[in-house]
Amino acid sequence: MARLDTLLAPRSVAVIGASPDTHKIRGALLHFLRKNGFTGRIVPVNPSYTEINGIPCYPTIASAGEKVDLALVAIPANGVLAALEECAAAGVRNVIIISSGFAEDEASAPDLQHQITALAQRTGMRISGPNAEGFHNEVAKVTATFSPAVDRETDDHPVALQARIGIVAQSGGMGFALFNRGRALGLSFSSIVSTGNEADLTLADFVAHMVEDPDTAAILLFLESIRDPAGFAAAAQAAKEAGKFIVAIKIGRSAVGKLAAASHTASMAGWDTGYDAMFHRYGITVATELDEALSIAAALAANPPAKGNRVAVVTVSGGAGAWSADAMADAGLELPALSAATQAEIRSFIPSYGAARNPIDLTAQGAQGGGMLRTVGLLLDDPAIDQIAVVTSLANPARVSLDGPTLAGLLAQRRKPVLLYSYTLPSDLGRRAVAEAGAVVFPSMAMLARAASALVQAGQPISPVGESEPLPSSVLARLAYPAGPMAEHVAKALLAECGAVVSPSRLVNSPAHLADAAAQLGFPLAAKIQSAAIPHKTEAGGVLLGITDQAALERAYADILANAKRHAPNATIDGVLLEPMAAKGVEIIIGIIRDPTFGPVVMVGAGGVTTELFKDTVHRLAPVDEAEATDMIHLLRSAPLLTGFRGAPAADVPALARLVALVSRLADAGRETVAELELNPVIVHSAGQGYTIADALLVLSPAGPIGA
Amino acid sequence: MARLDTLLAPRSVAVIGASPDTHKIRGALLHFLRKNGFTGRIVPVNPSYTEINGIPCYPTIASAGEKVDLALVAIPANGVLAALEECAAAGVRNVIIISSGFAEDEASAPDLQHQITALAQRTGMRISGPNAEGFHNEVAKVTATFSPAVDRETDDHPVALQARIGIVAQSGGMGFALFNRGRALGLSFSSIVSTGNEADLTLADFVAHMVEDPDTAAILLFLESIRDPAGFAAAAQAAKEAGKFIVAIKIGRSAVGKLAAASHTASMAGWDTGYDAMFHRYGITVATELDEALSIAAALAANPPAKGNRVAVVTVSGGAGAWSADAMADAGLELPALSAATQAEIRSFIPSYGAARNPIDLTAQGAQGGGMLRTVGLLLDDPAIDQIAVVTSLANPARVSLDGPTLAGLLAQRRKPVLLYSYTLPSDLGRRAVAEAGAVVFPSMAMLARAASALVQAGQPISPVGESEPLPSSVLARLAYPAGPMAEHVAKALLAECGAVVSPSRLVNSPAHLADAAAQLGFPLAAKIQSAAIPHKTEAGGVLLGITDQAALERAYADILANAKRHAPNATIDGVLLEPMAAKGVEIIIGIIRDPTFGPVVMVGAGGVTTELFKDTVHRLAPVDEAEATDMIHLLRSAPLLTGFRGAPAADVPALARLVALVSRLADAGRETVAELELNPVIVHSAGQGYTIADALLVLSPAGPIGA
Repeated sequence: MARLDTLLAPRSVAVIGASPDTHKIRGALLHFLRKNGFTGRIVPVNPSYTEINGIPCYPTIASAGEKVDLALVAIPANGVLAALEECAAAGVRNVIIISSGFAEDEASAPDLQHQITALAQRTGMRISGPNAEGFHNEVAKVTATFSPAVDRETDDHPVALQARIGIVAQSGGMGFALFNRGRALGLSFSSIVSTGNEADLTLADFVAHMVEDPDTAAILLFLESIRDPAGFAAAAQAAKEAGKFIVAIKIGRSAVGKLAAASHTASMAGWDTGYDAMFHRYGITVATELDEALSIAAALAANPPAKGNRVAVVTVSGGAGAWSADAMADAGLELPALSAATQAEIRSFIPSYGAARNPIDLTAQGAQGGGMLRTVGLLLDDPAIDQIAVVTSLANPARVSLDGPTLAGLLAQRRKPVLLYSYTLPSDLGRRAVAEAGAVVFPSMAMLARAASALVQAGQPISPVGESEPLPSSVLARLAYPAGPMAEHVAKALLAECGAVVSPSRLVNSPAHLADAAAQLGFPLAAKIQSAAIPHKTEAGGVLLGITDQAALERAYADILANAKRHAPNATIDGVLLEPMAAKGVEIIIGIIRDPTFGPVVMVGAGGVTTELFKDTVHRLAPVDEAEATDMIHLLRSAPLLTGFRGAPAADVPALARLVALVSRLADAGRETVAELELNPVIVHSAGQGYTIADALLVLSPAGPIGA
Repeated sequence: MARLDTLLAPRSVAVIGASPDTHKIRGALLHFLRKNGFTGRIVPVNPSYTEINGIPCYPTIASAGEKVDLALVAIPANGVLAALEECAAAGVRNVIIISSGFAEDEASAPDLQHQITALAQRTGMRISGPNAEGFHNEVAKVTATFSPAVDRETDDHPVALQARIGIVAQSGGMGFALFNRGRALGLSFSSIVSTGNEADLTLADFVAHMVEDPDTAAILLFLESIRDPAGFAAAAQAAKEAGKFIVAIKIGRSAVGKLAAASHTASMAGWDTGYDAMFHRYGITVATELDEALSIAAALAANPPAKGNRVAVVTVSGGAGAWSADAMADAGLELPALSAATQAEIRSFIPSYGAARNPIDLTAQGAQGGGMLRTVGLLLDDPAIDQIAVVTSLANPARVSLDGPTLAGLLAQRRKPVLLYSYTLPSDLGRRAVAEAGAVVFPSMAMLARAASALVQAGQPISPVGESEPLPSSVLARLAYPAGPMAEHVAKALLAECGAVVSPSRLVNSPAHLADAAAQLGFPLAAKIQSAAIPHKTEAGGVLLGITDQAALERAYADILANAKRHAPNATIDGVLLEPMAAKGVEIIIGIIRDPTFGPVVMVGAGGVTTELFKDTVHRLAPVDEAEATDMIHLLRSAPLLTGFRGAPAADVPALARLVALVSRLADAGRETVAELELNPVIVHSAGQGYTIADALLVLSPAGPIGA
């Protein structure tokens, strides 16, 4: 039993306000439930009828004489609470509220949705919606939605894939559109669930259910925002452990999209960086198109993960071959030349104007008589190839160039991914023949390449975050310090306590100490005002760099203090921090972003203008270990600057990775209190020479624990 | 009459080697020609038959008793030349060689294809192919191909768009796949032509024909390489002037794709920068997917160009609305909030849980009773909206939410683009209803957004390159100078003659002149070795920067000469060039790339590591005028550095644009002789302060005129 089985596979379903009029939603619910073969008890509830189309109708839910598993509520919003109370009193286990007019509706009573939440918590009755479009369970034959997409008489698609995909969507229209398009691709589904406003049950609850549901092999999400991040994380982790892939379309990425999503679901969508970091953490593949999400899900459900990114393309058209090569390259895949032996074998059965290199152009002639699948067989045996893409034409209404049973036999081995694309629209015969063999025909070349790329990702399991040493208790205590910014020297002392390398420095309070400090540190020096009240020192005239002698140092000291006084007359000044000028290196930024949904996200980026102009940053949920920090660094487009660009010496990436991991642990430990943390720039020196943290900003939340 | 009418709309067609066996290509040709309703004379030629399926068959083409317009040749390669000679002798006007086994075939006789080219030139008979898949002319009902995609009995798609699209493809498989998929989208076609190896007629000839052809409204290309760049440019220019849009899929972009294309078509594909620059020059839209190319062509053929990038989305699903907003933003389009008046009017007929802002969520209820098209009507009247995207569901097999005649009326006005997407697969009823109204349903959200973006581009006509002053005759003479690199001071003198601003400098040949030069120029100075034999001065130890006094200058002079001597003992040294160190500014690279197909391409890029790491460069065919050069500069992702980044002063973009245009004119004038030209870096100073060309490299082709 999966946790929401009484909701998604109920033995009895009541329709509150049931009607014989199928043009009304309440009537359509009853109609589809019966039409699609629900075998449990149907309980229409409406005082206006004694029976509807031959089913006894009850005046109240209480009079039904049984604790029903699921009640569907599609009556006007102002009657919903009373109906819920009656359901709860009658022992109804689950309710889906399909009615609109709640938090998504500007004109609704402001507290209406909160009252639903409270009712669920008070009574224990689980509630999905309001403003939900219901669900459809293909396995248990439960249609609890009015979506015309579940009208099974209207299509007759051959099924290619027996493994079932579950869909959880915060937009019913999009959830059922995925179902509609997915069946046309030959996919099978378990349940399609529309979650609506999520007053009680959220997307995370349904994902958790599907992870437990033995009939669900992979999960597709269409989502705007995650209301229960902890629940979602637990479900995503469980999915990972169960080997059930999740593919997500996340909308509300653009500014206008965010606004639209907010008006639609009554919750402001979170920041992209947080979602992307979370998806990465749990190995969730992100898609932006319906067919893309379906293609990826189909590829993951039908194939073993790819062991690497080496693809062989088998085609019957030279043009299709060259085009495939471009599409694969765009998706980050490689098309290595085949071994001389494999090429020789292929050449033995194709004409001389074909190509055996890769992409393999068998030509129409060479593909005949089993040449296509003979080639696939050779590639399955070739250890230099990780997956196989067959690019052909299935348009012929009278003939299919792929022998069904042979193809079925090859696919059933599941030795490597085998993906199929027809550049023409498949004829009915073509689609049926390959579907019977268990092959999905991808809807476009780009989708084929995207699916192949997702299979490569799926073959690279994300290692769990390594255990790291806890931060010193003195640091943890310090993170509960009085709110507001810390002066740089305080922040650096904290970083040093955590194990970061911090430059030698002197905090000077009197001109009398300048000479001694300079003697200790050596010229050239940097001098910086230190005050919790002046977090942005440069703007305050509080920073002077490249000081080369004692006279300049004395002038700098006086100037900095005078500037600070002018900038912030009442600020408490800790002094002027002197540090040796840093040796040259590559400028990097390390920071944290506080995602409102997922908490601290650690960021590493190229320094200077590059971060902003080229958005050359990588984000991960905090904490990360050194291995993940190293991955982050190497994902920067400007990573070559760190690894020996144009003959320059390689930089100290291991030291940088340690620092990134350390910052992420600090952000994690301070998730309740750290509002801002940025090391900018960190100057990374050549291999073995470490880094210099040129500046550090740490701000503790001024309003008590964040997110409380 | 369009120029290839006797080929593409012949009155008589001979099939050389005609056969009653439709499993043979020669038999299929005859079969399809008859089946698809060719009304002209069919001339089977085969000594083995006296008639085939009731048509008289001739032993030789000469015996047919008429000069036929078109002969189709699909006999084995080794018999093709003899057949061509017979055709030419019999006065055949055009031949299509479908046979393979020529330049695309490693095993073919090396000179076979050249002999075909020579025969065409000698006899005047026009030849398409070899290795072509023929053509299909929908208007004249001429099927001269064996592609199963022309088997019209196998589909029954409603036609949405009467304007016909022509297809020219260097891959027959892909050309006919475009036809196959396009009809399913409801598009109409004129001719689909497969050009094969292009021994005589090239892609450019067929494009030129379609520009003249009154039945062709837009042209789709699938191409690997352009063999006749001048002919193509003329055809593309004519298309632009005739208002016929061209959409191109260019394959062979990746390294493996290039190789595959080369093996397929026996010609090495050109560099991408050249193709992209050429496509930009002629306003050709580039696509990478079949459905993308079809969607763009459909959008351009069915709609007026968009006046701007402001899109309104009308939908019945909040989720679809937010998703649309993301997709439009990804495609560079804006979704402005609608005016208060328009919003109020929409709110008057939608429920309170809908949204009138943009994206407009009418909800299913609000869309009923004509709400959808009423909204479209409002948006057609709203001057703040440039195009309209309707995002809905057409899956319902029994009902369509769009009234056909009303939609037809709105579309027929052609006031603004109106694009339609169904997130579910349209039912047969849905597709037919909107097709009858003249609306194409785009195959995905991304394709819809891509089409909308192409309509915006189409609304921004590319201004012709302005006339610019010819370069001084002294410069033109200099470009015929002895081959090889020029020393920097020579190149700079040339640039100065063309009108570029070049820093004051002194070429010093003796230490005795150093003091005088320094007095004239002022410290700090840069000193650089000058020798045509040392084009890469830094690597030779020939550059010293930031020289601040006389002693350092004397040391620098001696060191540079000593380094040069060591680096290139036999080089003729012109001297050491002294220049004042440049003021600060933004580093930019200006260069030219010599495209093997399209000649000189001018490039502007961000300086330093940015060019290489982030590929932040923009390319255009040379020459460009200052307006186009300004566009190029603003297209750089690092353009903000030039326009006042983070409060910095704006740089002198007008001066930079003048320099880019000047370099492009120099490259154009020197297209026969200039092998390399790069100004790197150009330091652009603040507005009104011009630029400093820090280094200039100009290399004249060592092997005589390029491309000769």
